[in-house]
Order: sequence, then structure tokens, then C-alpha cells
Amino acid sequence: MSHPNDPKLKSFIDVDSTSDFPIQNLPYGVFSTPDSVQRRVGVAIGDFVLDLAVLESEGLLKTGAERCAFAKPSLNAFMALGPKAWSSVRAQISEVLRHDSATLRDNAGLRKRALLPRKDVQLHMPFAVAGYTDFYSSKEHATNVGIMFRGKDNALQPNWLHIPIAYNGRASTVVVSGTPIVRPQGQLKPPSAEVPSFGPCKRLDFELEMGVVVGGASQMGTRLSEAQANEMIFGFVLLNDWSARDIQQWEYVPLGPFQAKAFGTSISPWVVTREALEPFRVQGPKQDPQPLPYLQQASANNYDLHLEVDLRAAKAKQAATISRTNFKYMYWSSVQQLVHHASSGCAMNVGDLLGSGTISGPEKDQRGSLLEISWNGAEPIELPGGEKRTFFEDGDSLIIRGWCQGDGYRVGFGDVEGTVMPST
Amino acid sequence: MSHPNDPKLKSFIDVDSTSDFPIQNLPYGVFSTPDSVQRRVGVAIGDFVLDLAVLESEGLLKTGAERCAFAKPSLNAFMALGPKAWSSVRAQISEVLRHDSATLRDNAGLRKRALLPRKDVQLHMPFAVAGYTDFYSSKEHATNVGIMFRGKDNALQPNWLHIPIAYNGRASTVVVSGTPIVRPQGQLKPPSAEVPSFGPCKRLDFELEMGVVVGGASQMGTRLSEAQANEMIFGFVLLNDWSARDIQQWEYVPLGPFQAKAFGTSISPWVVTREALEPFRVQGPKQDPQPLPYLQQASANNYDLHLEVDLRAAKAKQAATISRTNFKYMYWSSVQQLVHHASSGCAMNVGDLLGSGTISGPEKDQRGSLLEISWNGAEPIELPGGEKRTFFEDGDSLIIRGWCQGDGYRVGFGDVEGTVMPST
Repeated sequence: MSHPNDPKLKSFIDVDSTSDFPIQNLPYGVFSTPDSVQRRVGVAIGDFVLDLAVLESEGLLKTGAERCAFAKPSLNAFMALGPKAWSSVRAQISEVLRHDSATLRDNAGLRKRALLPRKDVQLHMPFAVAGYTDFYSSKEHATNVGIMFRGKDNALQPNWLHIPIAYNGRASTVVVSGTPIVRPQGQLKPPSAEVPSFGPCKRLDFELEMGVVVGGASQMGTRLSEAQANEMIFGFVLLNDWSARDIQQWEYVPLGPFQAKAFGTSISPWVVTREALEPFRVQGPKQDPQPLPYLQQASANNYDLHLEVDLRAAKAKQAATISRTNFKYMYWSSVQQLVHHASSGCAMNVGDLLGSGTISGPEKDQRGSLLEISWNGAEPIELPGGEKRTFFEDGDSLIIRGWCQGDGYRVGFGDVEGTVMPST
Repeated sequence: MSHPNDPKLKSFIDVDSTSDFPIQNLPYGVFSTPDSVQRRVGVAIGDFVLDLAVLESEGLLKTGAERCAFAKPSLNAFMALGPKAWSSVRAQISEVLRHDSATLRDNAGLRKRALLPRKDVQLHMPFAVAGYTDFYSSKEHATNVGIMFRGKDNALQPNWLHIPIAYNGRASTVVVSGTPIVRPQGQLKPPSAEVPSFGPCKRLDFELEMGVVVGGASQMGTRLSEAQANEMIFGFVLLNDWSARDIQQWEYVPLGPFQAKAFGTSISPWVVTREALEPFRVQGPKQDPQPLPYLQQASANNYDLHLEVDLRAAKAKQAATISRTNFKYMYWSSVQQLVHHASSGCAMNVGDLLGSGTISGPEKDQRGSLLEISWNGAEPIELPGGEKRTFFEDGDSLIIRGWCQGDGYRVGFGDVEGTVMPST
């Protein structure tokens, strides 16, 4: 039996070479259908969703646990079973879907119940977010922001090269792709104003990020090694950390962003497993100065993962690609982030979500926020229809896509999309 | 039938006038006993705990819900029933405990099952923390810290008088009184050092706070009025926001405190209801400049609530009181904090915990942290046994007590205690 990551594997379901969901991927999500509104766990394969609750109830999927893991409204119960169960289940699903495996392929009744056209299902939040933490780990992004606000000579803060800087975000407003984002109101004080006023954000932005989905837990008062942290990572999602730049500017000294980041964070509905991304591991940028021993890495913990950002203006029919970059540019890896997160003895939980921080590359067209792309509003983007943008207008949509390119196949995330609604 | 807050009410259980738990209080907690390890909800009355799961199963307590609310390991299910249920249940409990009420008083069998000596029960976390947010709302505290780090002329940041400043804290390490606190490790870079090192925190501190327990929810994309925010407050706890000053100093620019506050936050096991505190509402300090309209208050939203802090040094037998202050000094009220928290459209949830921020009063002996009491280490405290402290040593315990003083009775919180354990 070949490994589920084997590039030669084929499914009996036809999957196009540009599909995000070949048999080498098998990402997990939570869905419902008009006929069956109970939420349950599924796996994307080509244009279909495989209903794992059906497979489990038929005895075709063993998790090792006594209770069912997939007839659940979130992935949390499955994640809590740990990395051995994750690997075993993925191998079983791969086996069921292979072109030469008859169990599902030749059982028309089962196929009808277990394989649902993806266009007919409603996708929901894939997991219950225990805690949401947002990092700041792209050197290019931190440098760009630093130059804009402090000038070239003081761009990076002195701690940035030593610590994977982060703040705790707000878990209550992490939402699945497609959820509308209401333009936040807040206190605004442009430099020209004497006093602040309360009103709709005028500098609404996105941040292109990846999110780590933590599938394990650590005890309060203990720390994590690189290997332990790596083992706790269940998978990854695309993440858009919506940001109100004007609210942020006035509120963030000295305790960091609060309401500027609290109104919405969008994630992709599909969680791509760490295992599926293994073939695409690469070494990250050289870290200089060398990190402190607790942050040093023996493994390559970055991923060669292509990212594209589209903006569809309110009245435009077509979206314009405004950024193309790669997850591999991140200075601090997800493993380093998780090790640092637990370094004080902070307990980590199943369902914790770690935003990578805005992913900007070294080139101008690789920037991961409107703040950087429009250089703080000074260089508006020209969209194909002739419209210009510095920050979002009501009705604008932002779409992020991401995938790893294999030989003749892609391991992708689908996309995460959000549309800006007027303030209420 | 008189209101449960009536100062004249007496219980058939003897309650001393200095007890925190007279019939006018009735705070909620979660407990277990050696005989019955299942966690359930109870109410403190004098030296006893009233087992609400027993009362409910006997049909003596109606919540209006179909499912049981008290045979649960947290208060969340009860809180989700809303403020009418909270009031109704409190009135029923008060009725059952009155000196002239025979139901429980004259039923020896029921009394034995439902009234347990407080010394025999184990208290647990009273609610599942959905999100933990920590404010910074004492003008005296913010000013003291500002003077220490930026000098007298720039003590308060420009935004402080306009915004109830806050950051998202880490919910995973909010623990009940009595839980040991392991001295955190982290990156330290004293001003004299060229580069940071990783090791045990050398400036471990407490912060004296109150915590608001949110019992209601708000939808993403909506805001809250003063009245709505007030109605959503289920109750209050004492809170110690343990802080690693040296980790904080090196990490907090520009995104705020992270690992410096992530290793532990202790709360009292008893949640005193907002209703029980009603008789002690007072007007807060005058707010100048006038807050923006969304933060203006028609009601008195502060509380006259005495607070005392004891430090028991590792080898000392007796604790020394190192601060005496009052919750009424807070510049921003809990209601203003909650209104601001939702102002961007941030969804609030049942079980959210809002730390008030360190409570310091105008006088030198009213300061709520060792940072302020020892003036950043420059003025060590002399303890009765002759020992001195600037920050905590291993084995030290910190105890916070709090109560409102009625005429002949107290509405109190018990205490929150935590002991510092060596780094592991």
C-alpha cells in the first residue's frame, strides 16, 4: 500500500490537475446539506465532499476511539485523538478513494449517500476556535510597516529578530469564508484632528496570512520542544486578518491592537493537514542573529506554498490579482511560533488558531496588505475597470487562494472570500 | 416577600456579621466533594455550600429551562438562561434559606444532602472562560506606570482619557484560587544587556483586579448600549493578573503584552452576582474630557467595594497586608468596558471574562501591584518578619480579599490566593 502522499496515486473520482483537492490532499471541513442540516465532518476530493460520518457509521473508518468522531459540528473531537489517529484515518480515506478500491467505487447506494457534489453543500467553521493568536513573522511585512511609520533606519523593532512577536486576537469573530464583514466603527483620530470621533473605519484593510490549527494540548507550566510543537500541528488554513488601520493607529499604544482586529477574521473552510504538506517542506530564510536555543530548529519547517490575492471591486464583474507571494518567505516558522507561545508555561489547547502574520515577499507585487500595496494610501491601486483603491470600499470582496504545486497535481486550500458590508 | 437584597433578611443558618456569605449575597461557584466527584453548581451561605443540583432535582428550584442547569461543571448553562432567570433563581434560593422557611430547615435528610460544610468541598473554576480580556482602567495605576517609564510630563498616553484601553489575554490559563503559579521563563533583556537571554522571570508581580463575568452574548457586527451591557453582566470575581515585568518590558512593543501575561491569571471561586452588588453602586470619578457619546453613562456603574492584598513570604507564618484600596476608584466602569469591547462589532459570548485592570487608589498604600508598591524595585517593602520584597520570591503567596460593607453584614468574595512555584 503506498503512502497517501504518493504522487502516483489516482482516485476513481476524476480530479483535474489544477484542482485543489486531489487524492494527495484530503483536507477536512465541516458541512451540511439542505436535506440534512446536521453538521458533520467531510473531506474534499475533486468536485465532491466525502461524508466521513457516513463512512464511520458504516464501519469503514476506524479512529480507535469508542465514540464517533465525525458526526460532530467541529473537527475538535477528531483532532483530540492525536497524530497517530490523524495519520491512520487519512490512510483509510486514501485507501477508500483509490481507483483500484472497490468498497465505495462499486457500491452505488453508498456512493450516493457518502459522496456529495461540493456545489450542493454548505461549508461551516471547520473547528471551534479555543484561542486565536496572531503573529507578526514576515520580515518584509514588519520592515515595510516600520519604514512607513518610523523611517528606514528604525524599521525593525529591536526585539523583532529575537522573538516571534504576537498578540492574542479575538476568537469570537473568527468566521468561515463567505461570511460578510461589516465595516467596523470605532474611535478615529487622524493626525490633523484635535480630538477623536466615533464613526465608520475609513482605512479598512486585509492581511494575507496562513493559520495553524493546533490539534494537541500542553499543560500550564510546561514548555514545548520543536518536535512536540510540530506533532501538535494538525493542519493549516488560509486566513484573512481584517484590520481597521485608523482604529489601530489611535488605540494600539501601549497594549497593542484591540478593536482594530476584533470585528472579523476569515478562514478557509478546508483544513489541509500537516501530513499532506510534508512533500512541500522547505528551509526558511537564514535567521541572523541565531535564535536563542529554545527557538533553534533541526528541521525545515517552512512550506513552499503559493498564495494569490484577488480584489473584486463592488461593481466590477472580474476580480484583479493584487498580490502573488509564498508562505516560504516567513522568517519565523509555525513551529517556532508554537514553541514560543508555550515558552512561559502558557497552556495550549485543541482548537487553538495561530495566524502567521501578514505574508509579504521581497518584491513589490508580493505584499500582503493594502497598507503596503498602496504604501499607506500614497500609491492607489488601479483596477482593470479603471477604479482605484487605497483601502476597501463597501461591497468590495477580497479572495485569497493558496496551493502547493506537485508534479501534475496541486495540494490546495480552495479559497477564503469575504465581502465588506456597510457599517450598521 | 422581601427582595433578596433586603438587609433585614436572616437565614436559619447562622452567619457571622463579618462573613462574606450572608443571605444577602448568595454567590455561585462550582464544587465537588470526596464522596461525589461530579462537579456541580453551589451557592455559599455562611460556612456552608448549598448544592443547587440537589435542589433542582428535588423540584425546589425552577429555572424555566427544560434541561437541568446546575448538575454541570460550569455556570455557563445557567448564565445562558439570561437575567430574568438569574433573578428568579436567586429569589428562590433566598426563599429556601430564610429563617422562617421550613422546606429545607425542617427536612434533616434534605439538609444533609443539600447543605455541605464549606471546609469539606473542593472548589473549581466556576465557569468556562470563553474569552479573557484585560483592561487598563485605573487612572492612578496608568499614571504611576507612566511616571516610572516615561516621566511625569508624559505619564498618560494621549488615548487613555478617551478609550478604555485593553488587550486580549489568554483564556487557557485562567485558574481558580489555590492553583500554584509556576514562575515563567522567557526572554529577558535588562537595559544593561546587549542581547536577550532565556531564563526564569526575575520581576514576577501581581495585579489586583476585579473580573466581570459576562453572562450574555452579542452578535458579530452589532454594538451594545449602556443598558444592554449592564444586563449582560452576570457577576464579578476577584482577579490576580500575574505579570512578568521583565518579559513584558522586552516583548511588548509594538503589539502589547503576550507571554508576560500568559502563564496564569487567578480568580476567586465565587461569582458574586451583579444583583447582590446593586445596593453598593456608586458614581465613578468625574470623567474629563467627557467621553464620546457611545461611552456616556446615565447610571452609576461603579461599586463601593473594599479590597485588601496580603503577601505571605515563603518562610513567614503570617501574611502582611500590603495594599488597601477600593474598586470605586476605577476611571472606566465595567459597563463602559463592555460597551467599548463590542463597539467594533466584536461578538461577546457567555463566559467572557473582563479584567478591570490593576486597581490603584490615590494614596501610596492603595497601589495594586508590586511594580507600583516598590516603585519599580527602588523602594523594597519591609515585611513583618524583617524580610524585604521588591518582586516575588519562590514560595511567596499573594492573597486578595474583597467585600462590600452593608449595615451589619458584608457581601464578600472570599479570597483568591496563589503561591509561586520555582521554574521547571
